[in-house]
Amino acid sequence: MSTVYSPFVAELKEKMDFEGAFLVKIIQLHVDKNGRPYLNLILMDRTGEIEARVWDNASKLAEEVRAQDLLRVAGKVNLYQGRRQVIVEAAAKLPEGSAPLDRFVPASSYDVNRLYADLHALFSTLEDPFAKRLALNTLEDPEVKKKILRAPAAKSVHHAFAGGLIEHTLSVCRILDKLAHHYRHYYGKAVSRDLLLIGGLFHDIGKIFELSFERATEYSKEGQLIGHHVLGCELVDRIAGKIEGFPLELKLHAKHLILAHHGKLEYGSPKVPLTIEALIVHYVDDLDSKVNMVLEFIAEDVQPGEWTAVNRMMERPFLKTKVKPEVVGPSPGVET
Amino acid sequence: MSTVYSPFVAELKEKMDFEGAFLVKIIQLHVDKNGRPYLNLILMDRTGEIEARVWDNASKLAEEVRAQDLLRVAGKVNLYQGRRQVIVEAAAKLPEGSAPLDRFVPASSYDVNRLYADLHALFSTLEDPFAKRLALNTLEDPEVKKKILRAPAAKSVHHAFAGGLIEHTLSVCRILDKLAHHYRHYYGKAVSRDLLLIGGLFHDIGKIFELSFERATEYSKEGQLIGHHVLGCELVDRIAGKIEGFPLELKLHAKHLILAHHGKLEYGSPKVPLTIEALIVHYVDDLDSKVNMVLEFIAEDVQPGEWTAVNRMMERPFLKTKVKPEVVGPSPGVET
Amino acid sequence: MSTVYSPFVAELKEKMDFEGAFLVKIIQLHVDKNGRPYLNLILMDRTGEIEARVWDNASKLAEEVRAQDLLRVAGKVNLYQGRRQVIVEAAAKLPEGSAPLDRFVPASSYDVNRLYADLHALFSTLEDPFAKRLALNTLEDPEVKKKILRAPAAKSVHHAFAGGLIEHTLSVCRILDKLAHHYRHYYGKAVSRDLLLIGGLFHDIGKIFELSFERATEYSKEGQLIGHHVLGCELVDRIAGKIEGFPLELKLHAKHLILAHHGKLEYGSPKVPLTIEALIVHYVDDLDSKVNMVLEFIAEDVQPGEWTAVNRMMERPFLKTKVKPEVVGPSPGVET
Amino acid sequence: MSTVYSPFVAELKEKMDFEGAFLVKIIQLHVDKNGRPYLNLILMDRTGEIEARVWDNASKLAEEVRAQDLLRVAGKVNLYQGRRQVIVEAAAKLPEGSAPLDRFVPASSYDVNRLYADLHALFSTLEDPFAKRLALNTLEDPEVKKKILRAPAAKSVHHAFAGGLIEHTLSVCRILDKLAHHYRHYYGKAVSRDLLLIGGLFHDIGKIFELSFERATEYSKEGQLIGHHVLGCELVDRIAGKIEGFPLELKLHAKHLILAHHGKLEYGSPKVPLTIEALIVHYVDDLDSKVNMVLEFIAEDVQPGEWTAVNRMMERPFLKTKVKPEVVGPSPGVET
Amino acid sequence: MSTVYSPFVAELKEKMDFEGAFLVKIIQLHVDKNGRPYLNLILMDRTGEIEARVWDNASKLAEEVRAQDLLRVAGKVNLYQGRRQVIVEAAAKLPEGSAPLDRFVPASSYDVNRLYADLHALFSTLEDPFAKRLALNTLEDPEVKKKILRAPAAKSVHHAFAGGLIEHTLSVCRILDKLAHHYRHYYGKAVSRDLLLIGGLFHDIGKIFELSFERATEYSKEGQLIGHHVLGCELVDRIAGKIEGFPLELKLHAKHLILAHHGKLEYGSPKVPLTIEALIVHYVDDLDSKVNMVLEFIAEDVQPGEWTAVNRMMERPFLKTKVKPEVVGPSPGVET
Amino acid sequence: MSTVYSPFVAELKEKMDFEGAFLVKIIQLHVDKNGRPYLNLILMDRTGEIEARVWDNASKLAEEVRAQDLLRVAGKVNLYQGRRQVIVEAAAKLPEGSAPLDRFVPASSYDVNRLYADLHALFSTLEDPFAKRLALNTLEDPEVKKKILRAPAAKSVHHAFAGGLIEHTLSVCRILDKLAHHYRHYYGKAVSRDLLLIGGLFHDIGKIFELSFERATEYSKEGQLIGHHVLGCELVDRIAGKIEGFPLELKLHAKHLILAHHGKLEYGSPKVPLTIEALIVHYVDDLDSKVNMVLEFIAEDVQPGEWTAVNRMMERPFLKTKVKPEVVGPSPGVET
Repeated sequence: MSTVYSPFVAELKEKMDFEGAFLVKIIQLHVDKNGRPYLNLILMDRTGEIEARVWDNASKLAEEVRAQDLLRVAGKVNLYQGRRQVIVEAAAKLPEGSAPLDRFVPASSYDVNRLYADLHALFSTLEDPFAKRLALNTLEDPEVKKKILRAPAAKSVHHAFAGGLIEHTLSVCRILDKLAHHYRHYYGKAVSRDLLLIGGLFHDIGKIFELSFERATEYSKEGQLIGHHVLGCELVDRIAGKIEGFPLELKLHAKHLILAHHGKLEYGSPKVPLTIEALIVHYVDDLDSKVNMVLEFIAEDVQPGEWTAVNRMMERPFLKTKVKPEVVGPSPGVET
Repeated sequence: MSTVYSPFVAELKEKMDFEGAFLVKIIQLHVDKNGRPYLNLILMDRTGEIEARVWDNASKLAEEVRAQDLLRVAGKVNLYQGRRQVIVEAAAKLPEGSAPLDRFVPASSYDVNRLYADLHALFSTLEDPFAKRLALNTLEDPEVKKKILRAPAAKSVHHAFAGGLIEHTLSVCRILDKLAHHYRHYYGKAVSRDLLLIGGLFHDIGKIFELSFERATEYSKEGQLIGHHVLGCELVDRIAGKIEGFPLELKLHAKHLILAHHGKLEYGSPKVPLTIEALIVHYVDDLDSKVNMVLEFIAEDVQPGEWTAVNRMMERPFLKTKVKPEVVGPSPGVET
Repeated sequence: MSTVYSPFVAELKEKMDFEGAFLVKIIQLHVDKNGRPYLNLILMDRTGEIEARVWDNASKLAEEVRAQDLLRVAGKVNLYQGRRQVIVEAAAKLPEGSAPLDRFVPASSYDVNRLYADLHALFSTLEDPFAKRLALNTLEDPEVKKKILRAPAAKSVHHAFAGGLIEHTLSVCRILDKLAHHYRHYYGKAVSRDLLLIGGLFHDIGKIFELSFERATEYSKEGQLIGHHVLGCELVDRIAGKIEGFPLELKLHAKHLILAHHGKLEYGSPKVPLTIEALIVHYVDDLDSKVNMVLEFIAEDVQPGEWTAVNRMMERPFLKTKVKPEVVGPSPGVET
Repeated sequence: MSTVYSPFVAELKEKMDFEGAFLVKIIQLHVDKNGRPYLNLILMDRTGEIEARVWDNASKLAEEVRAQDLLRVAGKVNLYQGRRQVIVEAAAKLPEGSAPLDRFVPASSYDVNRLYADLHALFSTLEDPFAKRLALNTLEDPEVKKKILRAPAAKSVHHAFAGGLIEHTLSVCRILDKLAHHYRHYYGKAVSRDLLLIGGLFHDIGKIFELSFERATEYSKEGQLIGHHVLGCELVDRIAGKIEGFPLELKLHAKHLILAHHGKLEYGSPKVPLTIEALIVHYVDDLDSKVNMVLEFIAEDVQPGEWTAVNRMMERPFLKTKVKPEVVGPSPGVET
Repeated sequence: MSTVYSPFVAELKEKMDFEGAFLVKIIQLHVDKNGRPYLNLILMDRTGEIEARVWDNASKLAEEVRAQDLLRVAGKVNLYQGRRQVIVEAAAKLPEGSAPLDRFVPASSYDVNRLYADLHALFSTLEDPFAKRLALNTLEDPEVKKKILRAPAAKSVHHAFAGGLIEHTLSVCRILDKLAHHYRHYYGKAVSRDLLLIGGLFHDIGKIFELSFERATEYSKEGQLIGHHVLGCELVDRIAGKIEGFPLELKLHAKHLILAHHGKLEYGSPKVPLTIEALIVHYVDDLDSKVNMVLEFIAEDVQPGEWTAVNRMMERPFLKTKVKPEVVGPSPGVET
Repeated sequence: MSTVYSPFVAELKEKMDFEGAFLVKIIQLHVDKNGRPYLNLILMDRTGEIEARVWDNASKLAEEVRAQDLLRVAGKVNLYQGRRQVIVEAAAKLPEGSAPLDRFVPASSYDVNRLYADLHALFSTLEDPFAKRLALNTLEDPEVKKKILRAPAAKSVHHAFAGGLIEHTLSVCRILDKLAHHYRHYYGKAVSRDLLLIGGLFHDIGKIFELSFERATEYSKEGQLIGHHVLGCELVDRIAGKIEGFPLELKLHAKHLILAHHGKLEYGSPKVPLTIEALIVHYVDDLDSKVNMVLEFIAEDVQPGEWTAVNRMMERPFLKTKVKPEVVGPSPGVET
């Protein structure tokens, strides 16, 4: 069988010979019962993860390579206990920068710059000048902008890929916009579109500090000890503190929208929703996360038949959709 | 002070003298400590309820009048332990039909025939011919149509007024329609608009049998023993049973959408959502009920200051909206 | 060591050579690290399950054999990580019908026809003619009869074997009969024996549609999406619909007995018991299921000492009974 | 209207003049807004409780009469806020012993001596000599016997009347006896009839120390601080300690049956059932308490219509039984 | 009976004539059934609250007096439905400042300036210079100092009086100091005394902003929408922001100690304790609040007998202590 | 590499050759796929546990050696799936008593006789003569003394080593002593130091009967069926029964302190704390157990970085302490 060059993880098939570059997620040295050392690796790129085993030069490689390094690998794919496993025939560490990082980290299927532009455009339509300034200054803040173009929306569970946060944020904001329009027909101006959208933008923004996501996504120390609810409030304080005359009332609303967005104390919100806008933002955040989680889960399921395996978060299997979830780019939800 | 004629309950103010007709919700005869009999009543019309006390001719009136009767009352309004109370000076039972019933039962602010027409129009746009037939045959079924034009969405809590069910149903369906459109940009045809809308129409339709709502809303016996989830499934069976070639698959989906719409077993759903459409219908039903409940609660709150009293369902007070909720008729959500 | 012919799974011992026929529950093809293909199987018959591994002709066999096929196997039993494992030396697919299916599926220890006759006799004693007709017509319905003679009471947990449903149903009905008699001495005719027995017969009957149990027991699609509570109600509707003059009141009671039998919403009942009979049926169903589950668990436990392993459903170990649970046939509970 | 002599509380009707003796449950002195003192009382006898008000000689009576005294009352019945209330015209404290106490405390409808004899006879049939001795010595212990002939099964909720404990105990034991017989046909001697019955007798016996029930039922101090689970175990220790050669194993079983009978930790059992007998005793205790509670609740309900008011313990209304619960004496469950 | 001058609420006894000044907590105008207006008031001072009724000049007084005003009252004490009630004979509003406010608001029994000095002295002993600066700068901040000398620890429940926060804070800090010393003998320097004390000082400090407590204690708007956890973190940011070189690590610890001090998400902490110090601070805060709550509850209980009434927070009665809780001033816990 | 003699389990490193004695915790015989028998063992000493595999003479050894035997082993340490595993080259059973048992069972780092002396001294300071007698007679009871010098405080979780119970008991008593002193300054003599210390000594003392701990710690049969709460009460009864004139009141308090020390019914306490002392004892027991558990968990964690692995009991990782927990002997908390 001839060798396949530069395959993605998702393309590796049983018995395939290949050569290519991968990100090392985990690396461990073991010794077999005859005293022979070998390496267990988990390799990843943006399409998935795969186990690998190295028998030759294992000790030497173990000294050179660390988790998060890039590795050039020549190998063959076997099935082991029902899972694919790479038997590595040759491997060498790649120097930093020898390949673009976005090949190795899973990413949004959309153009994140386009998502950013759409989000910016949406917030240019806010009525209240202070709410608009708060939103636009936040989006234009260099640190925020750099991070929001790469951040995932979660370590796992939903939108867990580079750009996932902005993809989720834009989707939530667009649904909130539709609901503002819808309920205006029912209850007049009682529900504030400005506050709904502020809630949409800021509810998860603390995640750009809660997670570290240069390569594999992890919680940062302040993420663990403080959490994205409070980190989001601190960002509001920082941005609003530089806007002269920023009204206290609006700052309280913005923070409450962030603090209450998980809906219940037991889900980590220190406050339950006490305003109609906080209540709606909570529902839409929950809905959009779950829809994404379930459809990704269905898309990736490999069970034969109509049912997926049991989803651990939701503690149930799902009936697969008739049409497989697919992506329509470049920016979703653009209504032209 | 001069007498006010035909006031609504909501218009009765302390010290006002008035004359008018009301529906008797509760009637009880008591004897005071001097052995003098008196009547305690709860009177209602579509704007609210008020306590009343009759001292003259109490025994005679007690023999003539029953709960759910109409009563002509002349009286005066006092404050008793912080609540308004009518001291009845003269009262006489009104013959059946002497006044239009809709004066006495709270009702949707919208034209229910217009809501019905909007709903019918929406379901004419379904793609799948069997789904469309199921929906339209249901709406056109004479018993269903008669009941759905009057049914409340609940005994209390949310949309608890004549026409409340169709108002809630149409609102849910319109939001589902928007979401179908929104997620098509993200996941292609994976989420079925037809199933979402079938879920919107049928999720609460069993309430037309679960509740009796000719005058004051009560649970029917089958409502208590069987519940609107199963009663809704029986309606699907009945309507679909008359459509030749109706696919079993679609019937299973329709029933699952009904059975799972409360989202969790502990909220009375015998099945948790196992399809993406059932999950979304659950969220939108919950969102729309809560938004209505909270905004009605804010609109009716009489507490001084920025905060409402504690809402018993949600176990919290709410911050009042800046703009009071108001209604924009005739059919909400019409986008022209 | 000489070869054992046609052993049951329960009889396979370490180091035994044997030849016999088994049902294939699961079949998977793998490749070892030298590129050599092998098969992992789970084989079953009515006495249990065992893992098996095929090294010779693995690929060819993988093409011929599917899950749920019958397989003739010659092999040897090893211990692997503390569990028995068959090393297959030769294997061949058996043609459909070459062996009676009941050898391969675990079954009630009782004569199901005798259980059926006992159940039928019990329901001939109902007083109310419509209740009696409902019960007997159901038992005599050809589809119901065929299925109820084979259905298990659950996929696992309790009475999880062919005939388990009718065994559990008869046991519950007999206990209910005793309780009707008992409480008549306390509360006169307040508790209806007819309703208790209707509850006993119908509470789990929806399981004949919720499960598919020709070979290994699985949930059917309507089982997953609708559930045995509602499927049981649909059966009541279907049978009662053909009995002229069937009283609505009795139909409501029958359905309520089914819907409420899990006792609490969080256990999947859409209604809590609201009648004294529904309350009693719930307790007896729960008691009989748990007694069966625990005694089977004790009977099958292989731990040394007085205590069983931890039962996962009940989250505790059990003290073993002094006398091991044993079966006394042909129909249990016959009092002569 | 002529005066009724010696009526029971249950017989007092609006506007009735009467004279009779009652137990004082609560007595409080107040002053009206004109400075005139009056007494509020709650009077009781075995048929129920009623509020009463004394205007004449209130201060003097307040000095003479205490809660738990007997009082001779002449008065008249009024309705006050929908409840009956006695206006006392004359009242005088009765000397201790001037009337038999059992007129004033609600009691079992059965002959408690007959219940005791039945229970004693049942335990004479135990097989294991030590189990039999433990049971009979307990029943024959003078302190236990005296108390068990009077104790209620609870302060309120179920069997809350003199003799309620022995009534409940006998009912539970008889059901357990039937189940022992029933399951012998299924599982042979795995379930021990002796242990089931020991569980039936002892599960609630600690209540004779947990409650004080000479007049109105209250918790004793040791009841509050220790509880009937542990008090029951202490009784087992005390009785078994006097039986030579009493096996430790049986003592452990007896205590475990007591400690585990509430079934779950959160219901006050420090141990969950770990033996098949403890599991069954828990179910039957729960069933018998609930059946008694619900049927008493239905029997006493005064709501018009088919439904009772909401039962606070069970958080639901109940559908009334077609036939009102009635009592068939002298000892229930005697099968002759 | 002669008139008592300037009594405290706690000293008002049935039938007493008195004259004195009180704070108006609630004021409501009603009309009796003869059309005569009257006022219902709740009067308070630092020893408690009492209901009052005004019949003369009620309307005029209603126009002049508002909640939170001071009122001079001459009246008499009656018992009404078992509770004391003042019948007001004459009343007049007092001008602002005509009496020292601390007569009317319940307060710590200790000298709050002494408590403050003790707290300040304790934090002068911290080892880490930044931790010491953070604590002392906070205590010395003019706004914080002014507020902390008056703030209660809660709106009700525990330490609900002026100075309650500093009393609770000092008690918690002293216990933490003892535990730091205790565990040093067990685990060496693993548990940081500095962090424990920082947690003790800051855990509840956000309450100075969460509550408004000039007269009667209420939640502020930022208290409702943001809560004392996050408000405490903002204070840390503000004070630490002015200390040059303040280490990020210490700021994270301080905030985590605040955010995690309720111990569980469902109690309003957005983070569970993840450091050993946060875990200990949580326990000690909980312990000290409960001890204060229970001992105050026992001290104020007026039930006859050994048991208190049921405590609503803890859902149980308590056995009264043999010795009544009493206060030993001026600063508690001073060990000299 | 040269051989290491008599290493502790904690000292075994990958690739090390060694010889030494260990306690056999688990022993199982298997056969590999070539029919070759081998042994899987878990070996332990007081520093930890390790897996071992024997290939030579496996069958013979399997016949001679049982769990809880001592074994002399010569072998080599490999890494297998990331865990250390001993490959046994030679092994022989050691005769009983050939090595001191305390080498093989993990133990308190303190001198248990010193802990015992400290505890005895502390209880000599009780004021109430009966409380003092109860405590000292218990400590001096030969069976209690023998067991308390060896018992662990739990099977796992916290203080799970020989002497763990007395270490935990002394720590709890000392903290209670400090709190008694602390709260005396706040509430006078309301909180009884005697009762606090009685609670500290007896709360867990039933564990000396609940656990069997000669070698590996297991639950005893009475531990499983009765539990340490009730076993502790039985000990109080036994010791107090021999003290003439022992007051009932004190016995009730002592038992309540034991029964309520888990704080909530769902944690196995049949009574919630109803006295102030029971409440405080519950908090301090919980605090001291958790502090020990978390610090031991941190001390043993081998994860790289600042965070431990997830603690299964607490369902969270912990931030490691800056200074590693270390022990300062001989008796902790001695303040000289």
